[in-house]
Amino acid sequence: MGPSEIRGFVLSILDKINSSEDVKKLNADELLPLCDELRSFIIKNVSRTGGHLSSNLGTVELTVALHRVYDTAYDRIVFDVGHQSYAHKIITGRRDSFATLRQHGGISGFPKPYEKEDDAFIAGHASNSVSVALGMARARTLAGEDYDVAALIGDGALTGGLAYEGLANAASSGEPMVIILNDNNMSINENVGGMARLLQDMRVKPGYISFKRWYREVFCKLPGLYRFNHRIKEWLKRKLLPGNAFGEMGLYYLGPVDGHDVNKLETVLRWAKDMREPVLLHVVTTKGKGCPYAEQRPDMYHGVGKFDPETGQLEQSGDSFSSKFGEYLCEYAAQNKMIAAITAAMAGGTGLDAFAKCFPERFFDTGIAEGHAVAMAAGMAKQGAVPVFAVYSSFLQRGYDMLIHDVALQKLHVVLAVDRAGLVGSDGETHHGLFDVNYLSSVPGMTVLCPASFSELHDMLGFAIKEVKGPVALRYPRGGEGEYTGSSLAPEQLIRPGNDLTLVCYGTMVNQALAAAEILAKQGIGAEIIKLGWIRPNSFTMTLNSLGKTGRLLVAEEACAPGSVGEQLAAAAAENAITLKEIKLLNLGDGIVPQGSVQELLHDYGLDGEGIARSALEICSDNGKTQ
Amino acid sequence: MGPSEIRGFVLSILDKINSSEDVKKLNADELLPLCDELRSFIIKNVSRTGGHLSSNLGTVELTVALHRVYDTAYDRIVFDVGHQSYAHKIITGRRDSFATLRQHGGISGFPKPYEKEDDAFIAGHASNSVSVALGMARARTLAGEDYDVAALIGDGALTGGLAYEGLANAASSGEPMVIILNDNNMSINENVGGMARLLQDMRVKPGYISFKRWYREVFCKLPGLYRFNHRIKEWLKRKLLPGNAFGEMGLYYLGPVDGHDVNKLETVLRWAKDMREPVLLHVVTTKGKGCPYAEQRPDMYHGVGKFDPETGQLEQSGDSFSSKFGEYLCEYAAQNKMIAAITAAMAGGTGLDAFAKCFPERFFDTGIAEGHAVAMAAGMAKQGAVPVFAVYSSFLQRGYDMLIHDVALQKLHVVLAVDRAGLVGSDGETHHGLFDVNYLSSVPGMTVLCPASFSELHDMLGFAIKEVKGPVALRYPRGGEGEYTGSSLAPEQLIRPGNDLTLVCYGTMVNQALAAAEILAKQGIGAEIIKLGWIRPNSFTMTLNSLGKTGRLLVAEEACAPGSVGEQLAAAAAENAITLKEIKLLNLGDGIVPQGSVQELLHDYGLDGEGIARSALEICSDNGKTQ
Repeated sequence: MGPSEIRGFVLSILDKINSSEDVKKLNADELLPLCDELRSFIIKNVSRTGGHLSSNLGTVELTVALHRVYDTAYDRIVFDVGHQSYAHKIITGRRDSFATLRQHGGISGFPKPYEKEDDAFIAGHASNSVSVALGMARARTLAGEDYDVAALIGDGALTGGLAYEGLANAASSGEPMVIILNDNNMSINENVGGMARLLQDMRVKPGYISFKRWYREVFCKLPGLYRFNHRIKEWLKRKLLPGNAFGEMGLYYLGPVDGHDVNKLETVLRWAKDMREPVLLHVVTTKGKGCPYAEQRPDMYHGVGKFDPETGQLEQSGDSFSSKFGEYLCEYAAQNKMIAAITAAMAGGTGLDAFAKCFPERFFDTGIAEGHAVAMAAGMAKQGAVPVFAVYSSFLQRGYDMLIHDVALQKLHVVLAVDRAGLVGSDGETHHGLFDVNYLSSVPGMTVLCPASFSELHDMLGFAIKEVKGPVALRYPRGGEGEYTGSSLAPEQLIRPGNDLTLVCYGTMVNQALAAAEILAKQGIGAEIIKLGWIRPNSFTMTLNSLGKTGRLLVAEEACAPGSVGEQLAAAAAENAITLKEIKLLNLGDGIVPQGSVQELLHDYGLDGEGIARSALEICSDNGKTQ
Repeated sequence: MGPSEIRGFVLSILDKINSSEDVKKLNADELLPLCDELRSFIIKNVSRTGGHLSSNLGTVELTVALHRVYDTAYDRIVFDVGHQSYAHKIITGRRDSFATLRQHGGISGFPKPYEKEDDAFIAGHASNSVSVALGMARARTLAGEDYDVAALIGDGALTGGLAYEGLANAASSGEPMVIILNDNNMSINENVGGMARLLQDMRVKPGYISFKRWYREVFCKLPGLYRFNHRIKEWLKRKLLPGNAFGEMGLYYLGPVDGHDVNKLETVLRWAKDMREPVLLHVVTTKGKGCPYAEQRPDMYHGVGKFDPETGQLEQSGDSFSSKFGEYLCEYAAQNKMIAAITAAMAGGTGLDAFAKCFPERFFDTGIAEGHAVAMAAGMAKQGAVPVFAVYSSFLQRGYDMLIHDVALQKLHVVLAVDRAGLVGSDGETHHGLFDVNYLSSVPGMTVLCPASFSELHDMLGFAIKEVKGPVALRYPRGGEGEYTGSSLAPEQLIRPGNDLTLVCYGTMVNQALAAAEILAKQGIGAEIIKLGWIRPNSFTMTLNSLGKTGRLLVAEEACAPGSVGEQLAAAAAENAITLKEIKLLNLGDGIVPQGSVQELLHDYGLDGEGIARSALEICSDNGKTQ
């Protein structure tokens, strides 16, 4: 399919498809046109809404084949990461909602059971699908039900230890289930782990499927051979069937299969399902398939904003905290050869691609393995290196234990560049970075810094690398800086004086606080804004002094309520015998926040300038609560 | 060596050993007697102090061989879990401190760099050693230094995904390092994962080491062959050398080797070290080796209290929260066939062994894979099962992300039985459960219950299984109940009325609170004790009412300060416009708490009855701070 066919296409088949059942009704010769229509539909829509392109184009045939063999409303198909679920969503009755993809109130770019029961499980973080599917298979067996269970996992997600734990446990479970390995030979960045090499080996071997099929038929269908002693059968299997790591684990390995031959996929999926044991089906796909620019640059078209569907021309984006971080780290790395950068398969997203080019010998991509990245950084720090691990806030949750056990107990100087802290926008509830204020604060001896501008990011990164002795984290948001472009390394900074209430914020929330103060000033209310540069350690001296003056505390933060800075400040005020006439803690509640633009979400949670001003007015009205 | 030789032995060789250097000075024929002396020394000492027995007896020869080949004061040997480090500690100058093993102020049962630089890295949680060693090797290369790095990891720890992440990354690193797989064919419980099967396959193959050695010598030493095209060499290697999963990953596999043949081990370790690439050396050992009762029941003698060194007779221990939990879960499971129990290789420690016997088809041991256990539980809950995951508080840190992503975002009814919450005693800083109050509180929609007695454990477990809808955790300590044997399901319970201060506690800390109240009563001070049965959700109504009356808040908890219940209460008081005259939050500070008996540690942190009473007196003296 060339770019010219993208415009003005007609959905002659797709228009009739609203469920697995509808896909099953098609003739075999309608499947290829269906795949073409799905592809065109995806390209057209994603070019308008933004979203994941390459991964969704790579799994069109596989998705169609899945719906031919399974009924997703009844059977449980668990997507891993879930950024390859568009074709599935289009097939299962959400075609007409696609204009709202990833938007406020619209459909999600990831599977969401609350959206449709065909989405078996939530997805967003990698490598969990095999574990989840195994749990589902076990529940099914306990309940004596008969639905089928499958997991669809990419080779990128296979670099995560969680996937390995799931595979190992599934292999020994005896549960009928199919693990479909979507091997596109490329995760977000090149996989540099051992699994990539292992898969490479397997890809070059010709398919043994027909032989295996024959073997199984002979040994299962002939009554005499079927009752064959188990040990002899195992021995024969080993001798007859070429092994690989999956087979050695105890999974029944099938593959590799061409992931763009929809009819063959259907046949092999049926075999796999019929095995009634844990099967690993190895499918080889091409990311971006059928779209020339996405096939050529699958990494560039992995997650995109709007683009021209004909040429692939992407809308330009400006400087971001991520790109600036990458730039600044290169600057410091040039001064000290012991500085090393670590990413967990997110070199592009975290801005480390620049570092990777300048200092390849000091750049380490661990694959999707945040726990390992933290433990490895600890080992490096113990021996005198300065490891800087750049990672998204919500993914660092995978490394929580290692932060405590491997880093903090030994007070090691590991630098964490915590990107995507706070609201992330359209990726929604699985990706918002709402927990790091809490979990980083609990790590013994952790210094937590919150740059609010590029300039502060620059200076605080230097401070973290050169001055801080133990573990240190810088947390900064997705996107760029706002109006505030100042620079301060201080734990607390008086941004704007006032006498009526103390308004505390950190990071880019300072921009909303300033907007609120403007609104309040017009109503004669003076908000004293204190911006925290540090979350921990912090004696909050300036804030407590301000509270002694105003007696009213308003805290605005993009974080979940438990363990928030607001709670910490309330405790500090009480411990310092400061009586608060009024207190209001603005935050993101229990931390389940839907998708939407950051501005829309801030508005919904009363965290934009208007909302903050409204809360300020409430606590300044002193409606009877003052003592 | 029979039991009779345990008593009154003479340390003729061991007496002279205080470093790697000393071990290197020995003649080859002195190594066997040295191993015998080490074994006797370990049995004698552990029988008096308690500690880990089987694992330390299994690695005596391996440890001696390590010290023949490496210098642990310079080279970096990273122990995994670390409960196999006794021989290493004895050899490196800590022989005379062994009477203080695992005691308050004494030497640790795990490697501790602050104790001796021969302990390269902290250990306690499983599966991190390869990651840490790889980090060290990378730091060495960056610094241009020449020390050697090795990791010593057991087959049990190999079931953890973190180990897999480390192995995969190490394999592709090119870093000279040796990963020694201590394969004793038995982790704490039987490994039920795919790795166990894989190792089983490898164990039956005869050793190919000498052939590999020859291969390497030929291809590396002959100049013509050395310059052989890389691809042809790789092809030859594959054809000539039998493969396995480690080899397929890209590690140079050596083994299996008899782990009790000290001379052979020394030879092979030298080979491995000389390879100058990532090597996996597979060593087969027997847990409990040389001690008949420990060899026969390695699980029973894994971690022990005091015992009779001749007969192995263990001191009896009474009922514990763990054993009671196991009993109660069986009771509920008999009523509902959808209840399933999950352990991460801790069936004995968590009390689930009873369940495993009664309901084998509903008992799932994941290996050391807490992340997978949580994600699998989520899958089970999604399909209508009632999974109960019993796990130590500090190990559940590994599942933090899965609690949020897989369980909480979908509000799934997963029951967590969080054992070893609070102080654990002699295992020390790596094992105390001090963070769960914080991290469980941050999980959206999590109900956190704190039974303070066996009776409450019984009722709250039933409540968690039958009544709670979303994720729910019960946190309870190591050991048994105290004087308090009451039972309440209420979020807050008035334990003792008083007018002078409000003393808030939860779990078994109620016993210390009651003791404090007795002391205070004698001084005419009335402490109102409120025991929290729930940490979340909790409106704290009773506590706030009490605070309105007393104006003084004292919170006593076995948890780290950040995110503590004390901070939450301070915020709740402020938000409810309750002015506190005095507040004191007693807790375990930043969370790095050393080893010692629970009673000793409570005393050190002012959390025993006396300490709590002392703090109460302070805040009741109103020394000028009252407003």
